[in-house]
Amino acid sequence: MRIALVIEYDGTAYCGWQVQKNGESVQGVIERAILKATGKAVRLVGSGRTDSGVHALGQVAHFDIDSKVPAESFAPMLNALLPCDVLILKSIQVEKTFNARFSAKKKTYRYRCYSSRYARPLQKRYAVNVPQGYDLALMQQAARLIEGEHDFKCFSASGSSVKNTTRTVYRLEIFEKDGDLIFEICGNGFLYNMVRSVVGTLLKVGYGKMTTAELSKAMTENLRSAVGKTMPACGLCLVSVEYDGVAI
Amino acid sequence: MRIALVIEYDGTAYCGWQVQKNGESVQGVIERAILKATGKAVRLVGSGRTDSGVHALGQVAHFDIDSKVPAESFAPMLNALLPCDVLILKSIQVEKTFNARFSAKKKTYRYRCYSSRYARPLQKRYAVNVPQGYDLALMQQAARLIEGEHDFKCFSASGSSVKNTTRTVYRLEIFEKDGDLIFEICGNGFLYNMVRSVVGTLLKVGYGKMTTAELSKAMTENLRSAVGKTMPACGLCLVSVEYDGVAI
Repeated sequence: MRIALVIEYDGTAYCGWQVQKNGESVQGVIERAILKATGKAVRLVGSGRTDSGVHALGQVAHFDIDSKVPAESFAPMLNALLPCDVLILKSIQVEKTFNARFSAKKKTYRYRCYSSRYARPLQKRYAVNVPQGYDLALMQQAARLIEGEHDFKCFSASGSSVKNTTRTVYRLEIFEKDGDLIFEICGNGFLYNMVRSVVGTLLKVGYGKMTTAELSKAMTENLRSAVGKTMPACGLCLVSVEYDGVAI
Repeated sequence: MRIALVIEYDGTAYCGWQVQKNGESVQGVIERAILKATGKAVRLVGSGRTDSGVHALGQVAHFDIDSKVPAESFAPMLNALLPCDVLILKSIQVEKTFNARFSAKKKTYRYRCYSSRYARPLQKRYAVNVPQGYDLALMQQAARLIEGEHDFKCFSASGSSVKNTTRTVYRLEIFEKDGDLIFEICGNGFLYNMVRSVVGTLLKVGYGKMTTAELSKAMTENLRSAVGKTMPACGLCLVSVEYDGVAI
């Protein structure tokens, strides 16, 4: 049977979602927990990679396994074996046609910033310190340029091998809450480093170092050098992944 | 001159505020930073101890030093030397009569809980998972019994050597926010473990395992065995310490 997992993790201690040679990955610890629980080596397919240090409230992954254990029992069974910074929120049986990566229709990411003279011990694990004095309304205006279907190549890490760099951003909201500055972006998919680069670019606009006209030009003419810096990983969190016809 | 520091820290990695043999303390790392910065060994006096794992947004401490460096410059100077989980928010010169411990008039603590089937990776560092189904209104009603001047001996850790166990709780608010259950308590001082024991006791009332009449009796008759359990350290944060006539 095919089982889908919904996963929350604190990415601080990991080299990212995907198994890599140079460190512990979230995929790796879950695959090992499945092996330990069932004796079976499976390959876990995530909705997409998250980078080293990026967190998740609702990453989705699937794997195939021959097992008499009901799918719902995998969550408690695996949680008993997983380290406390990785949690299976849910395990459900899905159709064989379901693919955590290719069936994903929408992903939502959240990026958290705050402004303080110094990086704050109680915030820095999940948010990034940015200078005061940004223009929120101006960033919200610039966000309207990001929304919609566009070629987002200028926001992708150089050297990325993806051919089609067109994506649709359904929603990009920027708001302040309890002293934090939050960016929430929902789209049909994101290029490597795209969310962190979009946030860096919107902040560049917010500090008056780039006009909305320049942002527009950077996007249409693919000016990688014009956009803002890629923001640090710790502020980023994969909030949810949505699928057609499957309530995850 | 006497210098007062306002300090934020993530207590996760520390054995508590006070210097101890068996681990790194917040007081210890700051004293070493002062020694490294000035060449002078000082003794830092905190407003009070916080236990291992307890956090602070506004701990206050003072020390005496002969120095030509202005008091305000100590914050940036020490922050450059401190680990990233301890931060000096402010350093100011105070009168020689000011004592971080004995001049403290009010302390405010916050305790954060949430309810989930499993401990959540992105919450567990600063909040504690409690079962669903508590009665918030009942806890708020019980909080009224805690407010005021009382002998709080039943909430203090057994074996504590403090003689006078009477304290005044000025305010005890319990509310839900963004899915969290928050306890905020302000008083003129707290016994060892008192805040965590008060929270455990209010939860015991909230789950219907203790009546408000039983709480009242436990307090007046000092029934340590009747009160709720001492809650885990990580949910607790020392929010602020207030002094008469000194704006910290």
